[in-house]
Amino acid sequence: MGSGKILVAQGGGPTAVINQSLVGVALEARRFRDVTRVYGALHGVRGIVNEEFIDLTQETSHNLELVAATPSSALGSTRDKPDEKYCAEIFNVLRAHEIEHFFYIGGNDSSDTVRIVSEQARAAGYPLRAIHIPKTIDNDLVGSDHTPGFPSAARFVAQAFAGANLDNASLPGVYVGVVMGRHAGFLTAASALGKKFPDDGPHLIYLPERTFSIESFLADVKATYERHGRCVIAVSEGIHDASGEPIATLLAKEATREIERDAHGNVQLSGTGALADLLCDEIRAKLGIKRVRGDTFGYLQRSFIGCVSDVDQREAREVGEKAVQYAFWGDRDGSVAIRRTGFYSADYALLPLSDVAGKTRTMEDEFIAPSGTDVTDAFRLYLRPLLGSGMPDAFRLRCARVAKILKPENR
Amino acid sequence: MGSGKILVAQGGGPTAVINQSLVGVALEARRFRDVTRVYGALHGVRGIVNEEFIDLTQETSHNLELVAATPSSALGSTRDKPDEKYCAEIFNVLRAHEIEHFFYIGGNDSSDTVRIVSEQARAAGYPLRAIHIPKTIDNDLVGSDHTPGFPSAARFVAQAFAGANLDNASLPGVYVGVVMGRHAGFLTAASALGKKFPDDGPHLIYLPERTFSIESFLADVKATYERHGRCVIAVSEGIHDASGEPIATLLAKEATREIERDAHGNVQLSGTGALADLLCDEIRAKLGIKRVRGDTFGYLQRSFIGCVSDVDQREAREVGEKAVQYAFWGDRDGSVAIRRTGFYSADYALLPLSDVAGKTRTMEDEFIAPSGTDVTDAFRLYLRPLLGSGMPDAFRLRCARVAKILKPENR
Repeated sequence: MGSGKILVAQGGGPTAVINQSLVGVALEARRFRDVTRVYGALHGVRGIVNEEFIDLTQETSHNLELVAATPSSALGSTRDKPDEKYCAEIFNVLRAHEIEHFFYIGGNDSSDTVRIVSEQARAAGYPLRAIHIPKTIDNDLVGSDHTPGFPSAARFVAQAFAGANLDNASLPGVYVGVVMGRHAGFLTAASALGKKFPDDGPHLIYLPERTFSIESFLADVKATYERHGRCVIAVSEGIHDASGEPIATLLAKEATREIERDAHGNVQLSGTGALADLLCDEIRAKLGIKRVRGDTFGYLQRSFIGCVSDVDQREAREVGEKAVQYAFWGDRDGSVAIRRTGFYSADYALLPLSDVAGKTRTMEDEFIAPSGTDVTDAFRLYLRPLLGSGMPDAFRLRCARVAKILKPENR
Repeated sequence: MGSGKILVAQGGGPTAVINQSLVGVALEARRFRDVTRVYGALHGVRGIVNEEFIDLTQETSHNLELVAATPSSALGSTRDKPDEKYCAEIFNVLRAHEIEHFFYIGGNDSSDTVRIVSEQARAAGYPLRAIHIPKTIDNDLVGSDHTPGFPSAARFVAQAFAGANLDNASLPGVYVGVVMGRHAGFLTAASALGKKFPDDGPHLIYLPERTFSIESFLADVKATYERHGRCVIAVSEGIHDASGEPIATLLAKEATREIERDAHGNVQLSGTGALADLLCDEIRAKLGIKRVRGDTFGYLQRSFIGCVSDVDQREAREVGEKAVQYAFWGDRDGSVAIRRTGFYSADYALLPLSDVAGKTRTMEDEFIAPSGTDVTDAFRLYLRPLLGSGMPDAFRLRCARVAKILKPENR
């Protein structure tokens, strides 16, 4: 560990608190006397191979704090997934710049990138310490109680559904809100935390952990609409049929649209309102309900400025700090994980990269109601403390009905 | 003015602060010793003809304050537009309940409802005092500097674009955000207030006040993308071609979908992601740009809980209070308007209903840049104080580039 230079980068989709982790690395690293430079790579691993570095050591700590509180990846991000050749280029650049500590803030795909880079470095005999710092609004990393970025996105989704429910109660009809989450339904399930009164929406929640059937969906909506005179529905963008085919992809096929895939082979599910529109069309056509509205939360839910969990902020900061501590005081590469130690308190651990990389956590069965269209109290207990302080609350009028005069009601 | 009963109702689309006006009426009215009862009609004028009243006098002032801070219409709303027969039913009910003061909180359509009811009452010889209390996120009422509800929705849109811009800078591409506003572009224009640095998005803003041409749009996007390597676009749902046909309707025709219209004959533009998807498809197909994402802000922008302007809150409260004062201390029906008296300060006036009802304000030319795809500083000066205190801010890293070693750049 002779090098005084460390490198930090951000990969994958941005979150509201990913810059907290970046700043956690930058400020903590400078407290180690061996550290001479903290470089940041622009746009993730792509910035490394292109030698696009900025010197974070030459940034004021004051501005770093302001950047920490700013959503989205301040260094820029990438969807690149390095292969052998890509990694060889990374090594060349790291060696040329005498960088021996690499911190990569990202989700599933990024942890796999760190694993490959780590293995390649070892195979090449290059003394690299590589640490993965977790980040994903999907909350789908194995080995963690939860992941930084998820609580703030969950807070946005909960607040959005709290508002959408009030809107829907005011002008009754059916409302469909489509939430991000390819394989894991945590973020969609967070919609349940926007619910206060028993008849509040979301009345139905559809998760990728359960097979989606349009027939069951229509029956659920019909029953809810008959009971409440309205229906608020939370749907994961990742819902799929029994064969595992995403409903969004089925729709795209019907419309003979070209399906966009990223470098990881993932079908593009966000950035289009198609799924919400399909479901609304189905409800209108099959149930004959007139007022049916669909929203796709899209990119608002991961980068909205001004809807952040303070718990998420401090944990995102700490995983960055802990990563540096593990790197300098530990003796192995790994992935930083959050462990729950109290109600509510958290601590951190360093997991082997192979335990995390490329694996996907989905919602545990205990979090999903037997109906398959709601969450359990265990999930509410799990998520509530993560949403942080100052959650807005909704109140109702409770005052007495006035007796009718012209058309008195039979009792 | 012998009756001690007043009636208040809420009409049209909800806002984040419409309950402030409701509570302003309820609390201010009880300070007049002649007032014996404050009734609220459920779901607007429909609640009147159905005699669906609740007695707000029997609500605690504490709970009223909590309801005031809750978004969306606590009494419920309606899109009904009363005709002669409908008004006759309203009179029958008002007469039966001895109600002689009617306060209706709503937008364009609701002000027209108040005008009709007022005229019908006069024609029928019924001593009704009818006051329209303004509310609309579209900011399209004539005679007002701005309308309650707009500032909070504008704040949501500005914050959403601030976040979307950061997201887009992190993972560059084209981003299209579709904002509510059928005829008036104020809310879409508010996206400009999310911009801080000169190269921030939104880079292009399309308003219903200007004719939309897909050719010009594509040329604008191409030029911006070539200059910045990315492009963030704000689009009003109400954009239309030279013949006045909404682009959303043209799309719906192509897809041979049934177009939904409300009781006022308005085409349904919200609650579907079709416009954003069409525009994204065009950009992908015609410009060959791969990463193109579209979001439709939909209902989030008018009822999001926890993104409210404090200036909007206090003004929405005051228009409710002033309505009661005009009713009891004045001698005519009318519509409450906000006047700007300082930077920033507001006062109120009572306008004749015929000056407001059924008329639509659109963005003044001085607010729109000559390019037609941006706002002016006059607009920024107009809107900024309305957004209220505590607006979140975005910060950037400004630190030095590290010199390349392997691939030094020619200078």
